[in-house]
Amino acid sequence: MTKPSQETPDVQAFSDYLENWQEQLYAAIRRLDETAGCHEDNWQHKAGGGGRSLAFSEGRIFEKGGINYSHIHGERLAPASTSKRPELAGRPFQAMGVSIVFHPLNPYVPTVHCNLRFFATAGEKPVWWFGGGYDLTPYYPFHEDVVAWHRAAREACLPFGKTVYPRCKKSCDDYFFLPHRNETRGVGGLFFDDLNQWGWTRSFAFARSIGNSFFPAYEAIVKRRQPTKYGRRERDFQAYRRARYVEFNLVYDRGTLFGLQSKGRTESVLTSMPPNARWVYGWTPDKDSKENDLYSNYLQARDWLKEP
Amino acid sequence: MTKPSQETPDVQAFSDYLENWQEQLYAAIRRLDETAGCHEDNWQHKAGGGGRSLAFSEGRIFEKGGINYSHIHGERLAPASTSKRPELAGRPFQAMGVSIVFHPLNPYVPTVHCNLRFFATAGEKPVWWFGGGYDLTPYYPFHEDVVAWHRAAREACLPFGKTVYPRCKKSCDDYFFLPHRNETRGVGGLFFDDLNQWGWTRSFAFARSIGNSFFPAYEAIVKRRQPTKYGRRERDFQAYRRARYVEFNLVYDRGTLFGLQSKGRTESVLTSMPPNARWVYGWTPDKDSKENDLYSNYLQARDWLKEP
Repeated sequence: MTKPSQETPDVQAFSDYLENWQEQLYAAIRRLDETAGCHEDNWQHKAGGGGRSLAFSEGRIFEKGGINYSHIHGERLAPASTSKRPELAGRPFQAMGVSIVFHPLNPYVPTVHCNLRFFATAGEKPVWWFGGGYDLTPYYPFHEDVVAWHRAAREACLPFGKTVYPRCKKSCDDYFFLPHRNETRGVGGLFFDDLNQWGWTRSFAFARSIGNSFFPAYEAIVKRRQPTKYGRRERDFQAYRRARYVEFNLVYDRGTLFGLQSKGRTESVLTSMPPNARWVYGWTPDKDSKENDLYSNYLQARDWLKEP
Repeated sequence: MTKPSQETPDVQAFSDYLENWQEQLYAAIRRLDETAGCHEDNWQHKAGGGGRSLAFSEGRIFEKGGINYSHIHGERLAPASTSKRPELAGRPFQAMGVSIVFHPLNPYVPTVHCNLRFFATAGEKPVWWFGGGYDLTPYYPFHEDVVAWHRAAREACLPFGKTVYPRCKKSCDDYFFLPHRNETRGVGGLFFDDLNQWGWTRSFAFARSIGNSFFPAYEAIVKRRQPTKYGRRERDFQAYRRARYVEFNLVYDRGTLFGLQSKGRTESVLTSMPPNARWVYGWTPDKDSKENDLYSNYLQARDWLKEP
C-alpha cells in the first residue's frame, strides 16, 4: 500500500476543482447581486500558464471584488520564490490558486477574503503543498455573525480532526495581524500553509472542504446585514477601516508582495484593494460610539466558539 | 589641517537647523493656507529621544499633510536597522530628520515630499551620513512647473559641483519608481543618501542648501495652480493616482517600512498617506484625454532641463 506521503499528486484534479469552483462562485455572486459589473480577463504569463480574472464593481451589494484563478508553470523556479526552501531553486514548478476578495457597499456587511493554492515542483523527489483559508473583516461587527462564521470554519475542519480548527484559527489570527497597529485585520477564520503531511488524497479533500464551506458561510451574513440602513457616517468609517486593509495587503501579505515582486499581473494581484480608502491623522473612535465596539471587542484574537 | 573626512560632526548644529527649519515651514504653510487645521504632537520614543509631529488637514489649499521632526537616540543599534552595515550593530547611535508631505485639495496642484535626515554612531570610529531630497507628484502636470522645479533643484546643487544635480536627479528617478506599474511616482527632483565623503562642513552645507531651496520652489507652483477650477472628474483622477502614492510608500519606501518595522510612531510614519485613494480594476486613461498626458509624458524618467 502506498504511504500517504508517497501518493502522487493529481494536479489536474485540483486544477479542475479550482476552475469549477471559480465558475460556481461566479454564478453565486451573480445570483446574489445581478447589478455588479463583471470584467473578465483571460491572460497568459510569460513564464508559462495563465489565468482568468473576474473583477466585479459597482454592484448594489458588492462595491468591488474579484475571483481570480491562476495556474503558472515554469522551467526553473526563481531563488526569490523559495527563500524558505533554497534547495528547490532551479526546478520546474507549478503554482495554482483561486483568490477571492469582496468589498461590499454597505458598511454593515463585512469584507471577505478566501484563497486556495497549490505548489509543486517536478524532479526526482517531487515537493508539493496546499495552502489557503478564509477570513472576515467587519466594520460594524455582529457577534452572532462572527460566531456563525467560525462555526462554519470549525465544521469544515472537523472531519480532519479536532485539533485542525484551533490550529488553523490561530494561524489565521497570527497571519492577519498588523503589528504597527497592534490590531488583527478582522475577526479571522482559517489559514493553513505547507500542507502535505496528510498525503495527497486527504490534503486535497481538506482543501475542498474549506473551499466548499466558504461561500454559504459568507452569503448568510451578507443576506442578514444587507438590509441594514447606513449613511455618510458609516461610509466614512468603512473607508477609514479599508485603509487598514490596504496597509495589511501592501506591507505584509505574502501573496500580494510575491505577486508584485515577481512581476505578476499587477491588476489581478491588486484586485484585493478596496474601492476607496481614507487616512485621517490620529483618528480614534469616541468611547461610547458604535465604532468603538469594533476596536474594543473585535481587533484582538479571541476564541469565538468558547462556551460561556 | 583636519581632513574633511576627519571633521567631527556638529550634530547639535544640524538638530538646531532641523528644528528651526520645521518652524519656518510651519509658518510658511500657515501663511499660504490659514484654513488648514494643524494638530501638534510632541512625543517620546522609548529607545530615547522623540519628535514633534505637525499634522495638517482640511485646508482650503492643503487637504492633508505633515511636517515631522524626529531625533531618536539609543544605546544599541538593532541589527535590522543596519543590514547594509552589520559592523554597526550594537553601537550607540542617533538618527534625526524632518519629513514633509503635502497633499493639496486641488488636483491641479501637485503633491510634494521633502526629507532631510542624518545618522551617526558613536564609538571609536564614528560613522555618520546625511540623506534627503525632494520630489514632486503632479496629477495634471504643467511642463513649465516641472522645469522650474528641476531648475531650483539644479541651482541648489550647483555650488557643490556640476555633477551633483544629475547624480541626485538620477537617484531620485531610480528611487521613486514603481516596478509593478512601470511608472515613476511623479516627476522626481533630488535624492541623496550615505553622504559623508565631503566631510561634515560641506555635507551640512549641502543639506541646508537642499532644505532651503525646497519651499520656495514648491510655493511658486502652488500659487500658480491653486486658482485652476476643477470638478468631480479631476478629484476622481486625483484619488485614483493617490493610490499609486500609497502603493509606493507601503511597498517600497525604506523610511516608511523602517518606521513601521521598528515600531516607530505609526501615525507620524503614515502622515505621508493621502487623505483618500481609489482603486479601479484595469483603469487606463482615454487616449486623447487630459489624464493621458500624465501617463504619456510624465511617468518615465526624463531630462527636464535639456535644451531643445
